[in-house]
Parts: sequence; structure tokens; C-alpha cells
Amino acid sequence: MVTSGLIQFDDWADIYASRVETMRTSAVRDLFAAASRSDIISLSGGMPDIARLPLDKVSEVAANAVKKEGVSGLQYGDTTGREQTKAVICRLMEDSDIHIKPEDLIVTTGAQQALDLLGKTFIDVGDVVITEGPTYLGALQAFSAYQPDVHTIEFDDEGMRMDLLEAELKKLGKRTVKFIYTIPTFQNPGGVTMSLERRKRLLELAHEYEVLVIEDDPYGRLRFEGEPEPCLRAMDDDVIYLGTVSKVFAPGLRTGWIIAPHPILQKIKMVKQGTDLCGSALNQVIVEHYFNDTPWKETLANINVKYWERRDAMLAALEEFFPPEARWTHPCGGFFVWVTLPEYVDTVQMLSVALENGVIFVPGDGCYPAGSGKGRNAMRIAFCYEEPEKLREAIRRLSMVIEERMALYRAFINAGAL
Amino acid sequence: MVTSGLIQFDDWADIYASRVETMRTSAVRDLFAAASRSDIISLSGGMPDIARLPLDKVSEVAANAVKKEGVSGLQYGDTTGREQTKAVICRLMEDSDIHIKPEDLIVTTGAQQALDLLGKTFIDVGDVVITEGPTYLGALQAFSAYQPDVHTIEFDDEGMRMDLLEAELKKLGKRTVKFIYTIPTFQNPGGVTMSLERRKRLLELAHEYEVLVIEDDPYGRLRFEGEPEPCLRAMDDDVIYLGTVSKVFAPGLRTGWIIAPHPILQKIKMVKQGTDLCGSALNQVIVEHYFNDTPWKETLANINVKYWERRDAMLAALEEFFPPEARWTHPCGGFFVWVTLPEYVDTVQMLSVALENGVIFVPGDGCYPAGSGKGRNAMRIAFCYEEPEKLREAIRRLSMVIEERMALYRAFINAGAL
Repeated sequence: MVTSGLIQFDDWADIYASRVETMRTSAVRDLFAAASRSDIISLSGGMPDIARLPLDKVSEVAANAVKKEGVSGLQYGDTTGREQTKAVICRLMEDSDIHIKPEDLIVTTGAQQALDLLGKTFIDVGDVVITEGPTYLGALQAFSAYQPDVHTIEFDDEGMRMDLLEAELKKLGKRTVKFIYTIPTFQNPGGVTMSLERRKRLLELAHEYEVLVIEDDPYGRLRFEGEPEPCLRAMDDDVIYLGTVSKVFAPGLRTGWIIAPHPILQKIKMVKQGTDLCGSALNQVIVEHYFNDTPWKETLANINVKYWERRDAMLAALEEFFPPEARWTHPCGGFFVWVTLPEYVDTVQMLSVALENGVIFVPGDGCYPAGSGKGRNAMRIAFCYEEPEKLREAIRRLSMVIEERMALYRAFINAGAL
Repeated sequence: MVTSGLIQFDDWADIYASRVETMRTSAVRDLFAAASRSDIISLSGGMPDIARLPLDKVSEVAANAVKKEGVSGLQYGDTTGREQTKAVICRLMEDSDIHIKPEDLIVTTGAQQALDLLGKTFIDVGDVVITEGPTYLGALQAFSAYQPDVHTIEFDDEGMRMDLLEAELKKLGKRTVKFIYTIPTFQNPGGVTMSLERRKRLLELAHEYEVLVIEDDPYGRLRFEGEPEPCLRAMDDDVIYLGTVSKVFAPGLRTGWIIAPHPILQKIKMVKQGTDLCGSALNQVIVEHYFNDTPWKETLANINVKYWERRDAMLAALEEFFPPEARWTHPCGGFFVWVTLPEYVDTVQMLSVALENGVIFVPGDGCYPAGSGKGRNAMRIAFCYEEPEKLREAIRRLSMVIEERMALYRAFINAGAL
């Protein structure tokens, strides 16, 4: 394990770039190892249910990808992605009312790389970017390499609060914010979805204050109930849209994409050249054939039913076991519920106790910029990965850990210690 | 084509990060599109001969990777790479007398990502790094995102000149250079190999001036003649070593690796999390089984014979057609020959004429830091990709383009115009 390096003296401690100081390693990722212990119930990762894919069919797709297209699939590919892959993505986007041509997008090594490329393209040290607070911790990690000043805007059940956004933009002034990063549908970690009214208002504000909007949409197709809201990109061609096959097919293929205005794509293409030359052409061939030659919508619909059952199980368990002081969101799709506990409950401290009890989750503070001090009494719990009975058991165990901490606090209060 | 954006007004021209200004797009990559025209003979890309892989066997490997290991192979993976992949890489490294354990390396999305991660981990704006001059253009691209001050050291037939390196280090002082980046074996673009004596001296100087050494070794196994020199990493555990399967198997799998001291690996791991979360687990499974279950050394030996024939064809054609004023290197392996033309021949200008004549190559100036003004009369020509008769034809055509430019120059001189 690389972690053995923790106790090794670092001869090079003084020569790292300054950005390394401000980065932090993700507690979640570091817990992935723990999550693979079979007795641990994982509420941490946003891992799709790969076991329900038609692996025999995918195996055939992979075999043919090499046999019939291996000469290009195993070779270096175009930095912006294969034309055939882009054509498939254009077709996928039609379902979201986003009408684009292959030249309107770049294929990326997962949507995570898209975040890195956008940070690299736009952020100088100290530049202001706006995100929801809490937001996707991987986005914060990606941007942090470029040392921005991240301002966060709270959400409620209708998504990012536009009154707070407007106040922030007014304070910061026109054309000073590099971009507004949002996950409008089934937000990570919030689970909430931005209402149509707020979507309209966001785009108005973006134009008024001349700020780019980045719409990250990994979960849009994972809806269990309610009617979909239009994508921001479907409402406004200036929006930068990030998509991925990770949640509708498989993250192991690391295939995502960026849709953006052409001048911006030009820059991103140049930036991507130095970053990894090109994505895996083989993975792109597999993606093409999976979406062209298999009944993927049916497969996804079946998997979605499972996610739906799991969400219901998690929400029922929260009702059953969690203390009345706790609040949580009610997602209509996606992978996550965001739980807010009494202010004195520290979820980072809670995590090690929960781990002893065989449950892991994401402490809320990781979903805010480092040093903000926010989210310490919150947690992201994912319902996507475990079966209903395990989810119920995990919530039961978590509730005991929480109750214990609340009892401890009450004892302190009663003893006059606080 | 994204290039249509070239003529589109860029509303966002003022909001890009400053690093974007100093980056340049690679002429080579932009020519990849041209290279796919069937009438073009490509001396540009360092593309391995994928068609000679046992595609049926690789197809079977890919099918099994999904069928038997798809549940992990299609899922998110560990940021540092799969344990099984690391074990395979350790075994590969044994052949180079590098004795490591899985915890001593991180799997990267191609060695290109390794370069990006190293830049991100070590380079602040203005930091000095040293490379050979000319050097791998993708390394310059990767580093340029972090805005270093790149100092280049010339090479001769024995590799990087240690007298020049020592003078440079003396001038710059101890512990001020972030790292020395070298491709000691079959250098890109030079084709030259560093002698044992120089390798020893490089490591001495690195210790004396407390500078990290990064050894990039994509071509080490592609030797046609002569005895191998030891890897720098085999001589010194402090050396950061970059490897890749791109030239010994397939670049389409985007699988490379970094070997480094543990404290440095810790930082790189953190940096990689934000950059792409993890590489493609599926590609890693395929890599594992290709090296475990196929006679890959035999396959590579057969492909190497082809590269060897092509090198011979190219060197013979250079002797036959190129003017006596031209000089070129004599690589004992790898993919490239570096040609130096009379100072007044500008290879960037030459490229468009060559393209009209159906040949592309890499103009030398791309192999130096932007704005250095060096390499304008040089070119990198790759012999790896085309068959001998095509190589001969390409060199014949190039020689005509060169002769034309030389004749033009002589005419100017005679007319007293210069």
C-alpha cells in the first residue's frame, strides 16, 4: 500500500507545487479499500449496479470491438474522440432535447476529466467560481488543483437558491466569476432537483452577469418519479454541458463528454492534448456498440427499478430509525440522500465509529471547499449500491451511532459541561 | 470539426486562464486527421504497428475480461490502479532489473497522464525544469500547463551532454531545479541512447545538486542492435520512472505507470484523484491477461523485426536521397530519426509543401519550448509506422522538397538578396 509512505520521511517535502498544499485527499476514495471488505455496508460511493448489466452481451461487444475494429481501437485516437462515438453521444443527447452535431463536443476520460480540463482552461489562482454548497466533492478536488476561490450557494428542495446567487453575483460584479458549476438534476450530494423557474432564473442571471454556466448531468436518466425538467443546455446554447456513460452504462470505460461553444472547445482540445493525448479508443468502440446494438434503455429501466426500491428502503429506514432532530432530502432519482444532523454532531468523528459498526458514508464537510467549516454535521448517504435489507440495516446501525453521540451531548449539557 | 470554431468570434476570449496563452496546440496531433488520408505517408506519429498484434487472441482476452471480471472491470477502480495490474507491471520491470513491489507504483492513464501529474505535483509558475533539447513534445505540452521555465540541454550520440548539464546546474544552484526530465533510451525525438558513463554522471549530478530525475522509458524494449544500458531507476531508487504498454502492446488501452519514492507517490495519488478519479479498470484487466496469458514477448520480437527493417530502409533512403548538408541520428531502437538541415531551411514552412506531396513529419521546433526559436531547421521522422518501400518514397519526396528550398536559397544568395 502506498500509505506506508505516510511514515516515510519525505526528502522532497519542500519542492512540491503550492497547489499540492491546498489539495486534500478524499476521505471517500480512501475508504474504497474499506468498502471492499465484505462485512461493510457501503453508503459512500456513487457506484452503479454493474452486476445487473448483461455481461454476456457486453463481453460479445468487447470481443467484436477488438476483432473488427482493433486496428483503430487499440491505436492512439483523436484527442477529441472518435467520430462514431460522438455520433452516438449526439443521439443520446436528442433524448434530452439537446440537438448537437459531433463537432459540438469532445469525448473525455470520464466526466471527472472534463472537470479537470475546465479548471485548467479557466481558473487562475484566486479566480472566483460558484458551486452549490454542498457540491460534488470530485469537482472541488478537480478545481482545487488550479487554486480558485470557491463560493458556495445553498440549495433547498427546488435546487440552488437564486436569491442567494443573485446577491452573490451582485456583490462580485459583472464578468468576475469564471463559472457557475451546477448539478441541477438529482444533485450530488443533495439529491434535489432545480425547478424550472430557478433554471430560467439561473440562465437570466448568467447572462446579466456574463458568467459561464457548467451543467453537470450524470444522473438525469435515473428518474423514479415526477416529470423531468429541461436541461439547462436545452434552454441555452451557451451552457457547457457534461455527460457521462458511467451511470447509464459503466464507469470502468471512463467515457464522458463536454458540450461547449466552439471557441471554448478549441481551448479544451489543446488542454486535453497535454493532459492525456486521447482517451481509450477501445473503450469508445465498446461504448458505441453498447448503445447501438443492445437494448440499453430496457437494461437501464430495469436497473432503475432497483435503485427506486433502494431509495424507498432508505427513506423508510430513515423515518423508522433516525432521530426527529435529523432532516434529509427526498430525491426523485439519482443516487444520494443528504442528511443534516444536529449541529453538535460531527460526522467526521462519527465515521470511524460507523466503520467499526460496519457502515461507511461520506462526511458532509468533504462536499464543501476545504477550510469552509461547513457541512460538519451533515452526511451523504448513497442508496444505489446495496440491497434494501442491507440499507435498512446500515441506517439502523448509523442511527445507533448518532443516538450515542446525541446522548453523550445531552449528558454533557446536563452536567453543565458545555 | 472543432476547427470550424476558428472562425467563430470568441465571447469568452478574456476569461481563459493565463496558462492557456502559453500553451500551443501540437502540429503533429492536428495532422493526425491528415495522416488518415490513405494517400499520405506518415512520418509524424509514433504509432506502433497494431495490425501485427494477434487480434483474435486479444479479442478473446477482452471478451473474458468482461465475462469473468466485468463486475470489477466495468466499475470505478482504485485511483492507483488494480493490484493485479501492478503485479504484472512489477514482473515486466524485473526484465529491466528494476525490483519493485506493487506499492511502489501508480497506474496512469497512459504515460502522458504521468507527465501531467508530475507537472501538477511539482511545478509552480516560473519553476525551472530541465529537459533534453529537443525533447518529447507531449512532455513540453504537459508541463506547459503549469508554466515552468524549461531549460534544455543538447544531446549528442551518447545522449544528454553532461558538461552542459553540469554548467547549467552550477549556474542555477542547488535544489532550485524541480526535476530533470530525460528519455535516456532511444530518445524522442533524437533516437539517441545515453551511454553508461553519462547515466552515472547524471545521477551524480542529480545528487550533488539535489534534483529529482524523471526517466521516461517507452521504447526500452524496442532494441534492434547493441547491448542495453541499465535503466537509471535500476541504478538509483530515487529516480522517478515512467513506463507504458503503448509501444509493447497497445496505446488504445491508455495504460502507463509511475514508479516513485512513496512520499511522492502519495502526492501523485491525491493529484490523480481530482484529475480522473481512476483509470479504466477494464483496460487494466485486458493488460493483465495480455501479459499473463499470451506469448507477448514473441509477438513483440516479431514486430521489432519489422521496425528494424523500417529503420534500415529509412537510413538507407536518407543516404540515397538527402543532400550532403543534412545530418541525422542512427537509432539502435525505438521509432525516430532526428534530421538537422541547413540553418536556412525552415521545416515548419516545409511541412505544408511536404503535405501537398503526400508526406507528413514533425517540424523540429515543436520539440523545444515555445518561443525558444530552436529546432526550426530540424525534423523528427518516424520509421515505425510505414512499410519500407513507402518510407523510401517518403524520403525521396521529402528530399525533393528540401532540394527545392535549398535551390531557392542559393538563387537568392546568387542574386545578392540575402
